Amino acid sequence: MSDASKIYLDEKEMPRQWYNLVADMPNKPLPPLHPGTKQPIGPEDLSAIFPMELIRQEVSTEKYIDIPDQVRDIYKIWRPSPLHRAYNLEKYLDAPVKIYYKNESVSPAGSHKPNTAVPQAYYNYKEGVKRIATETGAGQWGSALAFATQHFGIDLRVFMVKISYMQKPYRKSMMNVWNANVVASPSNLTDAGRMILEGNPDSPGSLGIAISEAVETAMKEPDTKYSLGSVLNHVLLHQTIIGLEAQKQMEIADAYPDMVIGCFGGGSNFAGISFPFLGENFRDGKNTRVIAVEPASCPKLTRGQFQYDFGDTVGLTPLLPMFTLGHNFVPAKIHAGGLRYHGAGSIVSQLLKDKLIEAQSVKQLETFEAGLIFARTEGIIPAPETSHAIAAVIREARKAKEEGTPKTILFNFSGHGIIDLAAYDKYFTGELEDHEVTDAEISKSVGELDRIIS
Amino acid sequence: MSDASKIYLDEKEMPRQWYNLVADMPNKPLPPLHPGTKQPIGPEDLSAIFPMELIRQEVSTEKYIDIPDQVRDIYKIWRPSPLHRAYNLEKYLDAPVKIYYKNESVSPAGSHKPNTAVPQAYYNYKEGVKRIATETGAGQWGSALAFATQHFGIDLRVFMVKISYMQKPYRKSMMNVWNANVVASPSNLTDAGRMILEGNPDSPGSLGIAISEAVETAMKEPDTKYSLGSVLNHVLLHQTIIGLEAQKQMEIADAYPDMVIGCFGGGSNFAGISFPFLGENFRDGKNTRVIAVEPASCPKLTRGQFQYDFGDTVGLTPLLPMFTLGHNFVPAKIHAGGLRYHGAGSIVSQLLKDKLIEAQSVKQLETFEAGLIFARTEGIIPAPETSHAIAAVIREARKAKEEGTPKTILFNFSGHGIIDLAAYDKYFTGELEDHEVTDAEISKSVGELDRIIS
Repeated sequence: MSDASKIYLDEKEMPRQWYNLVADMPNKPLPPLHPGTKQPIGPEDLSAIFPMELIRQEVSTEKYIDIPDQVRDIYKIWRPSPLHRAYNLEKYLDAPVKIYYKNESVSPAGSHKPNTAVPQAYYNYKEGVKRIATETGAGQWGSALAFATQHFGIDLRVFMVKISYMQKPYRKSMMNVWNANVVASPSNLTDAGRMILEGNPDSPGSLGIAISEAVETAMKEPDTKYSLGSVLNHVLLHQTIIGLEAQKQMEIADAYPDMVIGCFGGGSNFAGISFPFLGENFRDGKNTRVIAVEPASCPKLTRGQFQYDFGDTVGLTPLLPMFTLGHNFVPAKIHAGGLRYHGAGSIVSQLLKDKLIEAQSVKQLETFEAGLIFARTEGIIPAPETSHAIAAVIREARKAKEEGTPKTILFNFSGHGIIDLAAYDKYFTGELEDHEVTDAEISKSVGELDRIIS
Repeated sequence: MSDASKIYLDEKEMPRQWYNLVADMPNKPLPPLHPGTKQPIGPEDLSAIFPMELIRQEVSTEKYIDIPDQVRDIYKIWRPSPLHRAYNLEKYLDAPVKIYYKNESVSPAGSHKPNTAVPQAYYNYKEGVKRIATETGAGQWGSALAFATQHFGIDLRVFMVKISYMQKPYRKSMMNVWNANVVASPSNLTDAGRMILEGNPDSPGSLGIAISEAVETAMKEPDTKYSLGSVLNHVLLHQTIIGLEAQKQMEIADAYPDMVIGCFGGGSNFAGISFPFLGENFRDGKNTRVIAVEPASCPKLTRGQFQYDFGDTVGLTPLLPMFTLGHNFVPAKIHAGGLRYHGAGSIVSQLLKDKLIEAQSVKQLETFEAGLIFARTEGIIPAPETSHAIAAVIREARKAKEEGTPKTILFNFSGHGIIDLAAYDKYFTGELEDHEVTDAEISKSVGELDRIIS
């Protein structure tokens, strides 16, 4: 038993396998459908843009999948990541809670994203892929993949949403440090980009357009594949190393969480921390509450509909079974850019449908308040995305205080906010606001889906 | 013995005392002199701007000084810091070297600076100080002290050099997150600032002016003291926790360094990593080479003169025995702002005079090349200051390869470069250059010192 502020694992104790929750789920997720035939898609439908091993993992029902040695060697640059006990935050909250957090901000790119970027780059390298195309919004995913691909000598082209390209130069610089070719999207390098630019030469871009450009590049250029940083099953699988390490570390702390909390965009950091604990709920009769925290301005889990929908805005991807706001839903421009996504992945959506996980939404100002409390007590400045999880932790701690019930809380500190400091400035000067979504807006964008699947 | 990529220490093994090299030095450093009388200054001369405990530490000859429990509790937020084995860099260099680095970038402010900011804030708090004034150039020191003072409820005013205030908004934002009051210097809050502004309303400021404003504030405002982030003996003392931890970690790795390398500005990170090893040279007959690495554009160690000089540009501080370029020397605007200081502290200067340490200088472009090699192999993007140490490591590794002599190298990774990414951009676009200093320039600024001390 350890009551230290930080619990480290020896590298030898770093997990040798990822955990595939699908094996233990009471109801399996529904299959993705071909947008034309509306029939379940097969591996061959995906082979144009993904290497075979990732496709195998995407549909696997094996409980454990080996982590290749070469991936583990790169993981060792920052993994196992520390588990912290938030003593200073606990003291500030003065509530009967023990708060632990898994610190994924220690990675080269500053978030959990390299956990999947490295194996994705590796499997592409093993299958002879020379180039990868991807998209990035605020830049977290693009920088993580840049770090990973340069280790394997793979060229990377990142289509970065133009408005972020102009407003967030540091993420672009980081990608340049790691040899990526960063292009503002819409670009004139693809048909999709040229079409948009013809209609509007000053288009600020969107994640949807950037995905279209990246997928088109992968389909047209030789030896080129596409890579995605969240939503898909194989991405969530790679992230389970977070929760697997946390389980060992909680054991060293002689503690077990009453609840596990993660912020929610496409689901990757949330799945990473929580799936191994959900597995224990399913297999071993544990009863841990698992809470996904989303922005009130993009409330797919708390106010969306379970429905087949496209993964992208333009409609190029297979149809996925999702809790969704509709792929045409345009979330307000909150600073947690990584959470501005219209749908949840298949596995998470099935879990929510079966009431095996919970969801909460938080407004923007509450998340910045929470982020500042954390930065002032625990010393690490959180990314605006991560502050959503922290806001929920603070809520639950206050509830425990009101009820006088001791609780042990584990959350995922998914990333630091050092490149997001401009957002904190705006909070201080009162420029940030909360955004309400009306029921009518949601009905409209969800309603449009009926014609797609019918 | 451990061959892991990262060696952690348990918090229980975190040192309970700092190490005071003065106790073991063959020749003690010369005393500081009063600028008026030219006589050694006493504690009372410093009590207007520093708390008594720090003055005691400044002149102490005790070998070990206890680290207070409250300081250790805050250290635990990030300490003990990891020691990494740079396997990926070694592979890239293909030389017969083992390279270890102590990772001080894991602190809240991203550098080694909080190691002294926390105890300085603590001792001020213990003596009832309500406000601290300090200066900051690029912002590393100001943000570290902001993190520390807010933990003890002390108000902090940071005079930030105006050109940095405008060009480096993220460091200012970080200080705001930690509740500091950041003022662009020259300001109209002090006589010194007003005097400068009268002469030149558009003055970009300088570290010298900012020091004058902070010292004046400490002397005039009630319950207010001044705080400095490098150069002084008590600052170097606090930083020795770096080397003390590294000694324990090297023991776990079953390795002992043939050389210890740190970049050099005022001396704080260099002293932190190297003094405990120098102590073993002096006491136990070890023979570790200790190498300080400075910018070729600010070569006080390699081309300066051992001489009494002021610590600041304006001439308010006591006279210190220094290797110096003269306090009127204006270094070129290299991006390693933390190394643009005209002199070295008393202890380091005495060591260099006695040939107990070595010094090397590196030009700017070589440091950026080295920083990129590190970012691409080891994954962490170094601060431009830290890249000076890395450049020297690479030189020594290549020398070991030429000579065919295996070497074990330890260096201090003093800080990350995530807020310095704009400098990397300038390197990529070819906007950075090397700066030569002529002998005539040095003779001129050093020559001016003769009239001061005579």
